Amino acid sequence: MKKIFFTPGPTELFPEVRKFIDKALEDNVCSINHRSKEFMDVYRAATDSLRLLLNIPSNYNIFYLSSATECMDRLVQNCVEKNSFHFVNGAFADRFYKTAIELNKNAVKAEADYGKSFDFKNIDINNSPELICFTQNETSTGVQIDTEEIYNIKNKFPQSLTGADIVTSAPYVDLDFTKIDFAFFSVQKGFGLPAGLGVLMVNDRCMEKAVYLKSKNLTGSYHNFISLYENSVKHQTTETPNMLGIYLLGKVCESMNRYGIDRIRKETEEKAELLYDFFDKQEYLKPFVKNKADRSKTIINIETGGKQNEVKTMLSDKGIVVGSGYGKFKDSQIRIANFPMHRTEDVKKIIEVLSTIKS
Amino acid sequence: MKKIFFTPGPTELFPEVRKFIDKALEDNVCSINHRSKEFMDVYRAATDSLRLLLNIPSNYNIFYLSSATECMDRLVQNCVEKNSFHFVNGAFADRFYKTAIELNKNAVKAEADYGKSFDFKNIDINNSPELICFTQNETSTGVQIDTEEIYNIKNKFPQSLTGADIVTSAPYVDLDFTKIDFAFFSVQKGFGLPAGLGVLMVNDRCMEKAVYLKSKNLTGSYHNFISLYENSVKHQTTETPNMLGIYLLGKVCESMNRYGIDRIRKETEEKAELLYDFFDKQEYLKPFVKNKADRSKTIINIETGGKQNEVKTMLSDKGIVVGSGYGKFKDSQIRIANFPMHRTEDVKKIIEVLSTIKS
Repeated sequence: MKKIFFTPGPTELFPEVRKFIDKALEDNVCSINHRSKEFMDVYRAATDSLRLLLNIPSNYNIFYLSSATECMDRLVQNCVEKNSFHFVNGAFADRFYKTAIELNKNAVKAEADYGKSFDFKNIDINNSPELICFTQNETSTGVQIDTEEIYNIKNKFPQSLTGADIVTSAPYVDLDFTKIDFAFFSVQKGFGLPAGLGVLMVNDRCMEKAVYLKSKNLTGSYHNFISLYENSVKHQTTETPNMLGIYLLGKVCESMNRYGIDRIRKETEEKAELLYDFFDKQEYLKPFVKNKADRSKTIINIETGGKQNEVKTMLSDKGIVVGSGYGKFKDSQIRIANFPMHRTEDVKKIIEVLSTIKS
Repeated sequence: MKKIFFTPGPTELFPEVRKFIDKALEDNVCSINHRSKEFMDVYRAATDSLRLLLNIPSNYNIFYLSSATECMDRLVQNCVEKNSFHFVNGAFADRFYKTAIELNKNAVKAEADYGKSFDFKNIDINNSPELICFTQNETSTGVQIDTEEIYNIKNKFPQSLTGADIVTSAPYVDLDFTKIDFAFFSVQKGFGLPAGLGVLMVNDRCMEKAVYLKSKNLTGSYHNFISLYENSVKHQTTETPNMLGIYLLGKVCESMNRYGIDRIRKETEEKAELLYDFFDKQEYLKPFVKNKADRSKTIINIETGGKQNEVKTMLSDKGIVVGSGYGKFKDSQIRIANFPMHRTEDVKKIIEVLSTIKS
């Protein structure tokens, strides 16, 4: 039986990935020189398509790293001399915070209970942070942060560099890049690609900070922003990169641009509504995030009332794979991803299967 | 016309790569969870097959990073508090040295002219280096360093951690891992795989040093050896890795193990001999490396006597792609890779085509 992966990522591949890989092999994308005109064309095509898809302004650089975890590390190394501030309401926000701690920064965090967003009116940010870090869509808990709250914080702290982990909300989240300074994601989530590529988008203010920190020998060596920038303007990378990954990202973005990002966003919301409406009416299966405004449209955490095994088995019997909960919720929750490649008819199938759950 | 890539890497893919990718997609290798039993099996299979192929002892850990350039950075961060020493006779050795400089280490180098190896009897290593770095096969110049010279240096400096970049010599080079402390390579060279995976092998002495430096908060965050180690013993990685890359590496190593590493090494030497013998007899095309013992078996640099364009065109008319020279030799040399997937009949074709070169 063919499986359909509704896992938070790695997840179901974008439907055309196999075709794109075949074309890449036919065109020798994995054998050409990474400093050749042919590869620079691949690089430029990917960057242009992504820029169009996410509406990334021209004062942003797009860097290809190897994971979102690496993006966190690079941001701290290249943008923080001393102080960073982190909104932590889940495991991935905490990873960002801990990265800063491990890099010997004075990192401060505001915490919210897992499953909830923040009480933004009462947040105290008093360490003059150079970097303010949001996890716009917390993959561990299924909580989203309203982008307006991010823009508000940025307005309050114009000297800071403010931005967001959008690992599991891209490309759905309609982020106004002119109102932030950085964002990053990895490709094995909403883009439905093989893992091994992280994409970091930083504006000119981040670059200025990196230039300053580089002058003080504080940015590290590998993938410092200066090296990334100098190569990116040549449509190249510092090292031989995941060329196939960059090629595939370009192809998927092209395909999404043809389909229309507005349509992708609308369908994502419709599918999310189907799922939340269904689970809100269930006796045993309940959305983990109670406040509707805080509910992620792309990562849907469901408390299973002790029926996790039963739920997963019922779904897998129909070829549907969902994720377990994360961390302390590993055995009590399921997580259902709702990415562009997840079809409405398969979402309805999940609902149909789980409608038969016995009390 | 089907092209055959004799470039130093990215290069011709290992012949079964397409088949392996098809199988990976069929088995959902890009969709399964990177902490699942299924992926741990993929990880273990790759690690076991590589260990068998290169005869890596059990006191070594194998870490999957994203490039050889990243391996350099991690080695310096995790194994050097103050002093490193570098044998520099080409661009990649120089990159290793500069990485240490950028990481604010007291890095010292011994230099040799490009195209030559070192006068080991007269090398002065007096900075008590914590790390001694060789580039066993210099991809920019086609010079190999006799592994016995590496073992000798290690014997002379038993307190140091001594090892080698084997980026373009693996899996050909028959390295005795018990006589060194670390080595690394990337997969888009002798393993004929898509780029985006660097493999770092470090022994228990490197780990001890990393534990010490971690206790002083000096190892950085991302891919510090402690995090890599703690995940590797669970057959996992710190972040979601290039899962397809790890799967493919395992499959290629399995295939090479079936074929036999001794046979691969013997054939590599036979093909190298065919090429060097031919070029030694030519009037215009001459091996760049004059001393036969210093000649790399896997990267063959040829001076073209002003005929680089002509040579490359003659070959490409027959579907054969070779590399240009590196750096200052970009327009004057060609580089011919001689990796396991390069067939004797195609090497003979290169010779046949270039035999017709006019004076």
